[in-house]
Amino acid sequence: MKWSDNAWERVKLIYNKILTMPFNTELSNGTLQKEKFIFYLAQDAYYLLEFGRTLSTISGRMQDADLVMAFAGFSTGAIFAERSLHESYFVEFGLANEVKPTPSTLLYTNYILSQAAYANVEIAVAAVLPCFWIYKAVGDHIFAQQTNDQNPYKRWIDMYAGIEFATAVEKAIDITNQLAARANGATQQKMLDVFEMATRLEWMFWDSAYELEKWKV
Amino acid sequence: MKWSDNAWERVKLIYNKILTMPFNTELSNGTLQKEKFIFYLAQDAYYLLEFGRTLSTISGRMQDADLVMAFAGFSTGAIFAERSLHESYFVEFGLANEVKPTPSTLLYTNYILSQAAYANVEIAVAAVLPCFWIYKAVGDHIFAQQTNDQNPYKRWIDMYAGIEFATAVEKAIDITNQLAARANGATQQKMLDVFEMATRLEWMFWDSAYELEKWKV
Amino acid sequence: MKWSDNAWERVKLIYNKILTMPFNTELSNGTLQKEKFIFYLAQDAYYLLEFGRTLSTISGRMQDADLVMAFAGFSTGAIFAERSLHESYFVEFGLANEVKPTPSTLLYTNYILSQAAYANVEIAVAAVLPCFWIYKAVGDHIFAQQTNDQNPYKRWIDMYAGIEFATAVEKAIDITNQLAARANGATQQKMLDVFEMATRLEWMFWDSAYELEKWKV
Amino acid sequence: MKWSDNAWERVKLIYNKILTMPFNTELSNGTLQKEKFIFYLAQDAYYLLEFGRTLSTISGRMQDADLVMAFAGFSTGAIFAERSLHESYFVEFGLANEVKPTPSTLLYTNYILSQAAYANVEIAVAAVLPCFWIYKAVGDHIFAQQTNDQNPYKRWIDMYAGIEFATAVEKAIDITNQLAARANGATQQKMLDVFEMATRLEWMFWDSAYELEKWKV
Repeated sequence: MKWSDNAWERVKLIYNKILTMPFNTELSNGTLQKEKFIFYLAQDAYYLLEFGRTLSTISGRMQDADLVMAFAGFSTGAIFAERSLHESYFVEFGLANEVKPTPSTLLYTNYILSQAAYANVEIAVAAVLPCFWIYKAVGDHIFAQQTNDQNPYKRWIDMYAGIEFATAVEKAIDITNQLAARANGATQQKMLDVFEMATRLEWMFWDSAYELEKWKV
Repeated sequence: MKWSDNAWERVKLIYNKILTMPFNTELSNGTLQKEKFIFYLAQDAYYLLEFGRTLSTISGRMQDADLVMAFAGFSTGAIFAERSLHESYFVEFGLANEVKPTPSTLLYTNYILSQAAYANVEIAVAAVLPCFWIYKAVGDHIFAQQTNDQNPYKRWIDMYAGIEFATAVEKAIDITNQLAARANGATQQKMLDVFEMATRLEWMFWDSAYELEKWKV
Repeated sequence: MKWSDNAWERVKLIYNKILTMPFNTELSNGTLQKEKFIFYLAQDAYYLLEFGRTLSTISGRMQDADLVMAFAGFSTGAIFAERSLHESYFVEFGLANEVKPTPSTLLYTNYILSQAAYANVEIAVAAVLPCFWIYKAVGDHIFAQQTNDQNPYKRWIDMYAGIEFATAVEKAIDITNQLAARANGATQQKMLDVFEMATRLEWMFWDSAYELEKWKV
Repeated sequence: MKWSDNAWERVKLIYNKILTMPFNTELSNGTLQKEKFIFYLAQDAYYLLEFGRTLSTISGRMQDADLVMAFAGFSTGAIFAERSLHESYFVEFGLANEVKPTPSTLLYTNYILSQAAYANVEIAVAAVLPCFWIYKAVGDHIFAQQTNDQNPYKRWIDMYAGIEFATAVEKAIDITNQLAARANGATQQKMLDVFEMATRLEWMFWDSAYELEKWKV
């Protein structure tokens, strides 16, 4: 049994809750308020930059050339996506370039940044996997439910189903499995722990966008 | 004008809000529910360990022997406080040794851990200062309001006013001012930004204890 | 006056010594012993992997998306070069995949890795610049001296003069100048210090290859 | 069989060579040139500061409060020793406060700093162990050979045999064994690799002092 099988088992309940979150069901059927979608995009742009920094840091902590390359490539991909957001949606919706992160966004980004800098590297890799895997699975789910071209969020949903992202996700899962296979039981458990926490933070990210989360002070 | 004068000016509004938070006013007059106090202590123990790790990491990034020593000493102090909590209150209240952090606690700890690992070191120092300074100021304020010995939280409140912590706080402020004095304007601004954010996270820490914050998933 | 002008002034003497090192003059006129060239290639492959890891780590410490992207791209470039070495020269010369670094190689790689992890990020950037700039300048110098196609190291020398590397070098210098322009005088001085030290370590790298440096124990 | 037994077996040959190095035999019988001793002290002071920074960084990467505390305490001990050197010997011998490290010193310090920042934390711990253990063993060996009070380096040699340092060394070995016991075979091997390399760098440190090592450029 692969580590990723255990990992999916571990987060299945949270994943199922993500699929039925108002943000995702309304995005899927096209009824999501534009304000919430825009709020989400801005937070996503902020997130992607920090995700890229995290992936670069993990790249630096790898010792195998293929893995240094893989994570530097993942980082480039994340920053490229962040730039695309700014150059397309930000212009389209008239958003400011500077985004102030919500508490939930800041929680998620600092969680993965800390794992990358402090934890043993296999654990850091497990912490960034949900942003690949859960995101992809949710995207595929929403994409599969589209029946016509009237959804105003079609362009965004199509991106989810891109082959490039699919390839990156598969590669990220493979790498994590390889690292887990070489780790002992205690490390594999910690990898599951952080994978679960990052999946929970994915849920919070969508929830906070739907709630247009504000800082209390 | 010292950097710390600007810093205090910057957070004065948040600081004033902290003073009047239910958690602190009820702690001060002794009416705080015991459940909330215990909840707070457990989160504080979790926080202190991560605070200690952050201070150690900053110590490692210093180049001056006095500063390496100072932050290693601060770290030892934080871990010593964490141990004291476990050895006194945890036993007294029958708390489990393993504490699960709330979202607000995890946000604060990962914020300072990330600053210590990624930011230029002056900025990291500014990010840990509120936990010294704001905490001390709030503690002194509550201590000054005590009029008799009937407050069930007296022992905790007395700790706030300890001379050892006071010395550490003064030293931390002095070091931050010295680093700020050698930094340029842009860096001083970033120092103010993270100082303000960490102060905001102090507010959220107390708020989340009073609300007995739970994870939504 | 740009920081890079000061930087070049600072290392001019070492740079001139590098140009006249036996390794480089003999590489240039084609008389370098094959054993020394092979020894050098193996160390270079080891170096490039660590250089890539260093660049990724710097990428993770940047806050501007363009700079995160730039250094992740530099890292990918370094690892790509390392792979090319293994896939071409290593096969051609029958070299083992695993390279044991010499003291000089280990000194250089750990110096830049440490700067990337501990120093303020502008200083880390200055520490990796010689591997772009000095290397490029030396390569151009040797390339310019080629008069015919008989040099057995022609293929290697031609690589030095590649347009891709030239573009990367120019970008690295520009970025460093921008960061220096925003830094204060003390930081600019430290940037010069590490730039000089890394240039010195470049000299030692070539010297150690020519001497076929061994560990004493 | 403890990991430390394997570790000692692994470095026994290098350790035996260290015992018979001219620096140590001449220090032991009091014939070491004062110039070499002074050179050594200055490099040792430089080393200790970087050793302290390394230990602080490891402290920050620990997750157990006892270990965070232990390594912050080791760091404080190293910086305290560095200060003592400056306040006693540096004054006595009229040394400048600023020490320029030799290539061998810089190689050793950056090696351990890099391990602390990049490697999985058990491996980082194994990399700093020789500076505790080998140093202590060599010190005890030299101390045991003293027969009278005429050795001009007596005060220094006595320090080697201090009970405080002995306690720290024992604790460091115990911690490393505990971490190794929880690690898998591949990690234990890597721990042996870096332990051996750091022991080799100990040899080079003494050798470079005896040779009054200079930079070639």
